[in-house]
Amino acid sequence: MTDFTRTRTLFDLPEGVVYLDGNSLGPLPKAACQRVAHMMAEEWAKLLITGWNKAGWMDMPSRIGDRIARLIGAPAKSVVMGDTLSIKVYQALASALELRPGRPVVLSDSGNFPSDLYMAQGLLASLGRDYELKVVEPEAVADAIDETVAVTMITEVDYRTGRLHDMKTLTKKAHEAGAVAIWDLAHSAGAVPVDVSGSDADFAVGCTYKYLNGGPGAPAFIYVAPRLADAIRPALSGWLGHEAPFAFERDYRPGAGIERMRVGTPPIIALASLDAAMDAWDGVDMLDIRARSIELSERFIAEVEARCPGLELASPRDPNRRGSQVSFRFKRGYETMQALIAAGVIGDFRAPDIMRFGFTPLYLDIDDVLAAVARLEEIMKRRLFEEPAYAVRAKVT
Amino acid sequence: MTDFTRTRTLFDLPEGVVYLDGNSLGPLPKAACQRVAHMMAEEWAKLLITGWNKAGWMDMPSRIGDRIARLIGAPAKSVVMGDTLSIKVYQALASALELRPGRPVVLSDSGNFPSDLYMAQGLLASLGRDYELKVVEPEAVADAIDETVAVTMITEVDYRTGRLHDMKTLTKKAHEAGAVAIWDLAHSAGAVPVDVSGSDADFAVGCTYKYLNGGPGAPAFIYVAPRLADAIRPALSGWLGHEAPFAFERDYRPGAGIERMRVGTPPIIALASLDAAMDAWDGVDMLDIRARSIELSERFIAEVEARCPGLELASPRDPNRRGSQVSFRFKRGYETMQALIAAGVIGDFRAPDIMRFGFTPLYLDIDDVLAAVARLEEIMKRRLFEEPAYAVRAKVT
Repeated sequence: MTDFTRTRTLFDLPEGVVYLDGNSLGPLPKAACQRVAHMMAEEWAKLLITGWNKAGWMDMPSRIGDRIARLIGAPAKSVVMGDTLSIKVYQALASALELRPGRPVVLSDSGNFPSDLYMAQGLLASLGRDYELKVVEPEAVADAIDETVAVTMITEVDYRTGRLHDMKTLTKKAHEAGAVAIWDLAHSAGAVPVDVSGSDADFAVGCTYKYLNGGPGAPAFIYVAPRLADAIRPALSGWLGHEAPFAFERDYRPGAGIERMRVGTPPIIALASLDAAMDAWDGVDMLDIRARSIELSERFIAEVEARCPGLELASPRDPNRRGSQVSFRFKRGYETMQALIAAGVIGDFRAPDIMRFGFTPLYLDIDDVLAAVARLEEIMKRRLFEEPAYAVRAKVT
Repeated sequence: MTDFTRTRTLFDLPEGVVYLDGNSLGPLPKAACQRVAHMMAEEWAKLLITGWNKAGWMDMPSRIGDRIARLIGAPAKSVVMGDTLSIKVYQALASALELRPGRPVVLSDSGNFPSDLYMAQGLLASLGRDYELKVVEPEAVADAIDETVAVTMITEVDYRTGRLHDMKTLTKKAHEAGAVAIWDLAHSAGAVPVDVSGSDADFAVGCTYKYLNGGPGAPAFIYVAPRLADAIRPALSGWLGHEAPFAFERDYRPGAGIERMRVGTPPIIALASLDAAMDAWDGVDMLDIRARSIELSERFIAEVEARCPGLELASPRDPNRRGSQVSFRFKRGYETMQALIAAGVIGDFRAPDIMRFGFTPLYLDIDDVLAAVARLEEIMKRRLFEEPAYAVRAKVT
């Protein structure tokens, strides 16, 4: 049984703040400060170049990849860290397309994060053949999978509404039609139980600065199904994905399995922070996270709907169809969120009218939920969203 | 006049160590530890998601890019940070190729860093048209530039020998033949005076963990000539290169100028370290760096040749044809370098037989050079390269 009293103590959260934006940027794990300071002052300063071997820097992308693998239902040695999520999306899509030559369609949905769509647009324009990026409504994905589809490229949890796709069913549908399935787990890893193996996903990518608390711009991860990893060609064929990087050969030869998805020199300071952040997940069961996340978000919805008329739920009402965030629509959502932040409740806003709240059981409990709703209620009742944010702070206690 | 007594105090170097590998990984700038600790404990912990605006995180890639611009002769707002150097090479090459449709050749040389060649191989294989990566000897580059060449992709300073290409002449030659010139400045930025504007380079890329001391795996930079920046299509079209990232539009529209070369969420912890490292360059004149670098390396060569018979200079003898490193060939170079490192002189080894020494005036002086040669002489005279490295330490003082 996950000990949430313990996990809460691992984070450095400002006094009096209710942080409901861990779905965008997780808070500082106390251990990360110490780990990074150690890495810089003891490893970098003292070992200098020899740190690559002596401090194990070179293996960090695989070692941390294994820690994330456990949270997404992946076997050891199937996940590796590096780059940003946008680059990882590109890398997965480029390799996936070559597995299905002759098929023209990359299928995605309008709930996907725009950068995924942009990266696909950039790649397809480079390839210059008759590819089409087909973007349908989230509800229409299943029916749009047919034999023209080379790759489905879907984000499991919608960044605005929290709507949760059914990874297993859609992957099965994709495979039946002969397509390759790429899953973006940006809002899934550390948020909901994920089973890339059980779902038979082909590729999965994700970031680590949201629910995994690695720090702003922390390195991304990529998973490739072991049945495919030795067969794919890496389009981003950098030296650290080479079979023998330090042989400095003239021609690229892909490394074994997931190692070939490494590209350039790994970002060690950022990885040190992430590695420390992953300590918080030791002993944490994703099923416990899920149960608590649903408890927190159900209570939040019930309280907001009872006490804050005017806010309209934008997330699926069924908790089994939601990730670990809840969104409400409100015409004055932008100003309301500004007022909320001024009052110490940090969520965020996504155009045109979405107020977004993330629920992260590692460091949030029911008291946080109630405190957040109380301040929101105050702002709504007194129409404080009509005042500048700096005026709000004094009026909400 | 650059004050090298001051700059030396800015670095945390282990007592008794002579560090001649700043061309591979620069040492820890003392300010970097403090800056990163501040960024984590004061910005990330306290500002949380609002740090993106309140702490100026979102602008760091451009702000630090401007600091690097000064060192490479680039105007403000023409350099931006992010990703690894391999990714930046790919990005530059993909955009450059589209400027010269119909031309089949990417020209590089055998002195280029392998990852640049690998990334080109990966890109050209994806494009799948009749492209050819033509790799000639460094001396043959100029004559190989003809009307079939779409892009020249050259590293200015050879990572093994330190041989320095003539950027201005080769760029002129490329332009006369109608080709686009990409320069990799991995071993140039902070090492030698670079003038991307005066040389009329089209693209330049580089890393910041060598002479710029940003830390292991620190973010890379890319320069695009302002005359081109608004005309190129970014192949890696990520959301932060979008004209309006937070409008979350469905389709990609490139941002203005160099901003379009941004891709994903910037790595803030790593950028904080790099930003502090760049402080050491305030008040430093690259011409002073160059004069001192030549003084150090000339003295090193003279002493080694006088006192260490058997070592053969692998770098150009003319200092004007060298970057800021000196390489010697020796059949037992690997073991000799192991022994040297055990004796507190850190250089590195590149297969098959190259011992490499970097000279970095920010924190090295003539005494370091003499101490290094004295230990090398001892190892050579007593043939300590025949002993295991752990046995060497006691025998060399």
